Amino acid sequence: MTGLDDLRAQVCALHSELTRWDLVAWTSGNVSVRVPGTDRMLIKASGVSYDALAPEHMVECDLHGRPVHDGGPNPSSDTAAHAYVYRALPEVGGVVHTHSPYATAWAARGEPIPCAVTAMADEFGGDIPLGPFARIGDDSIGRGIVATLEGHRSPAVLMDRHGVFTIGATPQDAVKAAVMCEDVARTLHLARQSGPLERLPQDDIDALHDRYRNVYGQK
Amino acid sequence: MTGLDDLRAQVCALHSELTRWDLVAWTSGNVSVRVPGTDRMLIKASGVSYDALAPEHMVECDLHGRPVHDGGPNPSSDTAAHAYVYRALPEVGGVVHTHSPYATAWAARGEPIPCAVTAMADEFGGDIPLGPFARIGDDSIGRGIVATLEGHRSPAVLMDRHGVFTIGATPQDAVKAAVMCEDVARTLHLARQSGPLERLPQDDIDALHDRYRNVYGQK
Amino acid sequence: MTGLDDLRAQVCALHSELTRWDLVAWTSGNVSVRVPGTDRMLIKASGVSYDALAPEHMVECDLHGRPVHDGGPNPSSDTAAHAYVYRALPEVGGVVHTHSPYATAWAARGEPIPCAVTAMADEFGGDIPLGPFARIGDDSIGRGIVATLEGHRSPAVLMDRHGVFTIGATPQDAVKAAVMCEDVARTLHLARQSGPLERLPQDDIDALHDRYRNVYGQK
Amino acid sequence: MTGLDDLRAQVCALHSELTRWDLVAWTSGNVSVRVPGTDRMLIKASGVSYDALAPEHMVECDLHGRPVHDGGPNPSSDTAAHAYVYRALPEVGGVVHTHSPYATAWAARGEPIPCAVTAMADEFGGDIPLGPFARIGDDSIGRGIVATLEGHRSPAVLMDRHGVFTIGATPQDAVKAAVMCEDVARTLHLARQSGPLERLPQDDIDALHDRYRNVYGQK
Repeated sequence: MTGLDDLRAQVCALHSELTRWDLVAWTSGNVSVRVPGTDRMLIKASGVSYDALAPEHMVECDLHGRPVHDGGPNPSSDTAAHAYVYRALPEVGGVVHTHSPYATAWAARGEPIPCAVTAMADEFGGDIPLGPFARIGDDSIGRGIVATLEGHRSPAVLMDRHGVFTIGATPQDAVKAAVMCEDVARTLHLARQSGPLERLPQDDIDALHDRYRNVYGQK
Repeated sequence: MTGLDDLRAQVCALHSELTRWDLVAWTSGNVSVRVPGTDRMLIKASGVSYDALAPEHMVECDLHGRPVHDGGPNPSSDTAAHAYVYRALPEVGGVVHTHSPYATAWAARGEPIPCAVTAMADEFGGDIPLGPFARIGDDSIGRGIVATLEGHRSPAVLMDRHGVFTIGATPQDAVKAAVMCEDVARTLHLARQSGPLERLPQDDIDALHDRYRNVYGQK
Repeated sequence: MTGLDDLRAQVCALHSELTRWDLVAWTSGNVSVRVPGTDRMLIKASGVSYDALAPEHMVECDLHGRPVHDGGPNPSSDTAAHAYVYRALPEVGGVVHTHSPYATAWAARGEPIPCAVTAMADEFGGDIPLGPFARIGDDSIGRGIVATLEGHRSPAVLMDRHGVFTIGATPQDAVKAAVMCEDVARTLHLARQSGPLERLPQDDIDALHDRYRNVYGQK
Repeated sequence: MTGLDDLRAQVCALHSELTRWDLVAWTSGNVSVRVPGTDRMLIKASGVSYDALAPEHMVECDLHGRPVHDGGPNPSSDTAAHAYVYRALPEVGGVVHTHSPYATAWAARGEPIPCAVTAMADEFGGDIPLGPFARIGDDSIGRGIVATLEGHRSPAVLMDRHGVFTIGATPQDAVKAAVMCEDVARTLHLARQSGPLERLPQDDIDALHDRYRNVYGQK
């Protein structure tokens, strides 16, 4: 149980990265984690402010998004989407959802973000793709996320007229992808205001992405 | 009287959300609350900086905007507008006014914000409407707010070439509406810089709004 | 001498408003005050970071911008412009200079800011005017500021391809004008990105400005 | 060795200016310093978050970018570019690299920033030039930086579809150049959204830059 308590504390703390990097307004983003070696996940409670967020607001659910314990807080209204991703993609250990403004502006137009700067090749290995429009309430959003990400290297997907979902081997990786997604969405939004964007050549994208995955960071 | 003191402290503290979410410059926004079960309201004193704001700067007024006690600070110059809303709409318990920059940019053009992303359907249930141009100093602004909101689900209205007013069952709800109004105003401003916006289909808006009101958050 | 020490502390502290409202980068803005009843002023030392700023960095100068005491820090390279304003306009007690980004964007195009929202009528009583291009190093900037402001109600002037100068009866007033100048510069920049701006009718501007000067704030 | 420890602490602390002035997202920028009187440099470790950054994460390398000590953290993946600059330009004591959003937006379009406001003439003495597109992994980026800066007064260069490199006699100077580069990139981006930019006359640029280098700041 100590392991679960640690995980609760970690996922709770990661929400402060969403406010710090200006990815969320009020209570509009959430982080989840797969509980390793189980069919469970932890996800933010619905509608709780980031200031008030405590480890006990990380709701334990099964991978259909149903709370495991009675009487606790309601999980995020995005729980079904997170749960679908964990069911479909066993290598995913963390999922993040935001309406970060620049990325959601691309989503509002139904437009993917072209891979036009080296930082984007590094982190995303190509374009950040666009997923379908889907109503909340069943598996539509989760299916759209998975179907879109399966065709791309990108750990981020823009859901049409909705916002951003990112995945990672860990919730820290998914948070990093959400931060970098907003950063490149902003840079390329600004760039395009004064002229067309040119996608990097594919062989440069491939070389940069390969190097980033294998050389960057600490062992 | 303890109840009134608590209310003063709550409304005072809510002003920190206006600065935190970058909705105000210098002293340009204010929050008020209806004193439950009375014909009174509390509203920020005029021209007091947010740093210096203390519970005693929440001025008790009647619902015509007249201070109840002699010799205290002057209430906000927007008091008449807040008071009109409380007189006309008995279900309203809190009102917020800001000149938040993206929302006020839409207001400066005299343009409502179209409901083009799911977060906007959730919180506003449709477009954020435009109210009339009205000079400060009598009931014109209050009448314009009420007449405009009565035809919409939105708790936010853009007053032409002026700024934003939001309402709620509580002042917390009105502050949330002000934060979300600026958030969607920004996202859709950014989206439109590179292409036209498409309103969501009405049945999607209806379904999202209904779900949000009935499923989101804690019981 | 205690009075002068208090003034030093006040002007030093006001520089924190420049960073707080994002009006300055690195060391690029400054506040000055006329020492009441004398031909002296206090102004920020040149090139000192805002973090390191202490009251002793407020350099006492005569109204030709010459330091009164030998061996102290150099005053701001904008000192001549501040000094000219104090010589020419006896009612001015404080001057602020910034390169705040949205206002300087209007200045970079050589364009005044039209009075198109009520907050601008309140604070500026009309357009924020454009002053001439002038090189630093003599009285050209000061003369340009004074000649431009004399024809307007505005306490702010955009100096062509340079930045913003604001004046006030006190340095607090001049800082407020600098904050509000950037706020309306941003709102109207954003507004114009999606359509033309319409100036408010002159009688509305006159009525709003008159009311703001006579009703707003505390006695 | 105390000298080296001081240098580690200084360079570590300078990274907080990158976050403070919003020049970086997650771990995407770095500062280095030449160790005076040696063929060594100190540079940030790869992929370490700014919150966790401590002096021991400043990796000592030779001027080909190879770590001097075994078993320590990996240096930044940009180390080869920094090292090339120190080899080629003996007067350089500090180098900074960022993907700051407005400057990188100009870089993403492959466009230099024209010298159109006085602050830019002061700090950069002319346009901020554009360097070539170059893949990470060998000396291409370093060569591109040096070849571009040699033809300009500017301490900043935009690397095509990549980001910003700045140089200085000290790392503090290079950080200042990075902050000012983003500031003018933003101001001129905003200015151009509503009209064309006009470069300042060359004699004004020359006069402003000369004055700034010789009069500004403390002795």
